[in-house]
Amino acid sequence: MSRLLIIGGSDAGISAALRAREVNPKVDVTVVVADSFPNYSICGLPFYLSGEVPDWHNLAHRTAEEIAGEGIELLLDRTAQIIEPTNKIVTAVDRQGRSHSLKYDRLVVATGAASTQPRSIEGLDLPGVYLLHSMADSFAIHQHLTTHAPESAVIVGGGYIDLEMADALTHRGISVTVVQHSESVMKTLDPSLSEIVSEELQRHNVEVVTGLAIETIEQQGTQLLVKGEGFQTTTDMVVVAVGVKPAADLAQTAGVATGIKGAIKVNLRLETDVPDIYAAGDCVETWHRLLKKYTYLPLGTTAHKQGRIAGENAVGGNREFAGSLGTQVVKVFELAIARTGLRDSEAADAGFDPFTVAFETWDHKAYYPGAHKLYMRITGDRQTNRLLGAQIVGHHQAEIAKRIDIFATALFHNMKIDQLNDLDLSYAPPFSSPWDPIQMGAQAWVKSQQQSDRPIPVHA
Amino acid sequence: MSRLLIIGGSDAGISAALRAREVNPKVDVTVVVADSFPNYSICGLPFYLSGEVPDWHNLAHRTAEEIAGEGIELLLDRTAQIIEPTNKIVTAVDRQGRSHSLKYDRLVVATGAASTQPRSIEGLDLPGVYLLHSMADSFAIHQHLTTHAPESAVIVGGGYIDLEMADALTHRGISVTVVQHSESVMKTLDPSLSEIVSEELQRHNVEVVTGLAIETIEQQGTQLLVKGEGFQTTTDMVVVAVGVKPAADLAQTAGVATGIKGAIKVNLRLETDVPDIYAAGDCVETWHRLLKKYTYLPLGTTAHKQGRIAGENAVGGNREFAGSLGTQVVKVFELAIARTGLRDSEAADAGFDPFTVAFETWDHKAYYPGAHKLYMRITGDRQTNRLLGAQIVGHHQAEIAKRIDIFATALFHNMKIDQLNDLDLSYAPPFSSPWDPIQMGAQAWVKSQQQSDRPIPVHA
Repeated sequence: MSRLLIIGGSDAGISAALRAREVNPKVDVTVVVADSFPNYSICGLPFYLSGEVPDWHNLAHRTAEEIAGEGIELLLDRTAQIIEPTNKIVTAVDRQGRSHSLKYDRLVVATGAASTQPRSIEGLDLPGVYLLHSMADSFAIHQHLTTHAPESAVIVGGGYIDLEMADALTHRGISVTVVQHSESVMKTLDPSLSEIVSEELQRHNVEVVTGLAIETIEQQGTQLLVKGEGFQTTTDMVVVAVGVKPAADLAQTAGVATGIKGAIKVNLRLETDVPDIYAAGDCVETWHRLLKKYTYLPLGTTAHKQGRIAGENAVGGNREFAGSLGTQVVKVFELAIARTGLRDSEAADAGFDPFTVAFETWDHKAYYPGAHKLYMRITGDRQTNRLLGAQIVGHHQAEIAKRIDIFATALFHNMKIDQLNDLDLSYAPPFSSPWDPIQMGAQAWVKSQQQSDRPIPVHA
Repeated sequence: MSRLLIIGGSDAGISAALRAREVNPKVDVTVVVADSFPNYSICGLPFYLSGEVPDWHNLAHRTAEEIAGEGIELLLDRTAQIIEPTNKIVTAVDRQGRSHSLKYDRLVVATGAASTQPRSIEGLDLPGVYLLHSMADSFAIHQHLTTHAPESAVIVGGGYIDLEMADALTHRGISVTVVQHSESVMKTLDPSLSEIVSEELQRHNVEVVTGLAIETIEQQGTQLLVKGEGFQTTTDMVVVAVGVKPAADLAQTAGVATGIKGAIKVNLRLETDVPDIYAAGDCVETWHRLLKKYTYLPLGTTAHKQGRIAGENAVGGNREFAGSLGTQVVKVFELAIARTGLRDSEAADAGFDPFTVAFETWDHKAYYPGAHKLYMRITGDRQTNRLLGAQIVGHHQAEIAKRIDIFATALFHNMKIDQLNDLDLSYAPPFSSPWDPIQMGAQAWVKSQQQSDRPIPVHA
């Protein structure tokens, strides 16, 4: 083992490269990057578009120079086109169309994901209609924002990136409408919490339209006419970020097995079924720690972890991916919105006997200035009292992200809900209460579960 | 079992009462409270004195009416004077000097702690010199602040409450000097972090004098002359909060065994060695989860936990205290200062082979506005790679309190440091990085430990 080749220069690919060099500095590590932007924080794009990050170069986790400084060779603007597992050769094409043959001993495929085009919408190719996933998408939107100075925008979708974009474009002074197919925005949350998010959007003058599928987008003079059943509006631009799919064609063509949504199948060591080929990040199936099965759950955090493990194992290590809990947080205007583990419906689908309690309290002692309300939902198993998941919504300065992480750490260890009360958590009046809100929530769950045969939330 | 008597109406006592009623609503629960202030947040006193909490009534965790509403009888202004374990009678005296005999089936002693008077200082009884521990102390100081409008104050001690008071009095416009016996303030931290705290105090014009023992306080006209070796200053008031000791005399006189610093000995069920007498809170020895031995470690969080367990067990439950990790946080001006577990020296004393790494990074992606530096020290065992403790200092809005709690949750489960990288923690650019700072710190620890046979911090 002397030559490690990595296809993909985003989270998983660069993590793999860095870890491989750290574990075994004798290995030659080369990363093939399809564009000119290795190791960019794709999650930061909304903040570039909002104007909060004026220079997009700042979105780089590391510069190309820093990566090279770790002894990693970067081949930018080269698209890997063929993997030949038998000869251990990858063919990549540069911008001039020239082919390059790259030998490897071990290969990490980290080709990421691509935006899904909602096939049912007509007019997605019109000028002023944008997808948002890559740096290139982002530059196109930025160009439109600066040259056309749009006054209004329609965002199709109500998920994480959509709502970050609603915030970002509002920040620029643009009048935003969010149109969501399902009955509520942020459908990864329980409806009572989605409602709080919806109110926050409206409080910032974002129009929220739910339960509506956009059918057509048409040019109307310099504007766009956006139509769905019983709905139409004119707008200056449309942003679509409805989802992603694994970019796994290259690996699949090389004979690597794929599964859910076409994602590459890997074991916990991030090995594919083809010898000496590893895969990591948004292009692979992800082991879910609670569901105890593979899912497709593309997240930057997971990509970093998987990349690090693939890189370590590819150079002789033996580390296993511990699994995802689907922990996520997003900031939308003044709110932090976070979840980890399973919601009630997801837990029921997975064969648990879930019981969910809603609980609200202050993030710290209410007498100390600046207290904010936390809205929490805790899900546990009625039979075993095991914690299954938690959701928290509240002010972005209420330490919600790290509170969900305490739940995530508890989930990692299969804690029972009542056991959360045994945790020795920190307290001072500006930060918490003697029982942290997550422990108060745990007590509410226990009390409610003991008092009821049926799932009636204590604070509806 | 039909009559539960509880001596003490602060954190442990009220927690015991509430839990007993919750577990067994048929039990009569009576709480004997020495003053008129049941269930007050003693930790909130500095914020009352700063003026940030204008009305001291707001410091109550619950009002007397709320406690009574849970079916708990409160006997205010009665001092328990004798416990007779054989007859199961407690004698309490009211303000008029009348004795009351109170029968019990089970008893919870939650008599708390008292301030330690530093014997070596002369002049502590002068007007203008105050201890700070009880509500009564707090009223006396408040009275002085409002009637004398002091312009300067000396705080003797450099621990949590002292520095909160330095902040509080500065908030009132008073010029503050902190005098600390040891070589640094906040000696519960490693020196490099204490130094950051010291700088923060000085940045807010607090004079910090370390390595100095105050010897005498003398009246000098309307002022006080405070002297130590090679030091003297005149000031308008002096606040002394150098420590607490268990208030365990009542129980000891009744034949209950005491141990460390005179604290009541209890088992994990919070039973004393006298049948049907439980004890909890600042008056008891506390089991340390990492040291695997009893210590004296009075904290409000622990008092709540122990009280809840004592109350549950006293009415027929069977729950064990899981142990303290010494998790603490305090806000001093703009800083949050937090720790959990063992520091290097404490770990070495306990027979571990500790290795400590210093690490600094941003609380969230630096490109997103409002990023703050976190200064972290992580201690682990060199032989087993087990996490032993962590300290974090940084801006109070950098989610430090809940980050220390992630460490505390990891410590609870005996995690190895490298295993922290397996935790599925939340990420969005306004809140963290794809590897949370605690994971970056863990990686720095692993790297540093692997590269070195000797404990050389990576970022000194």
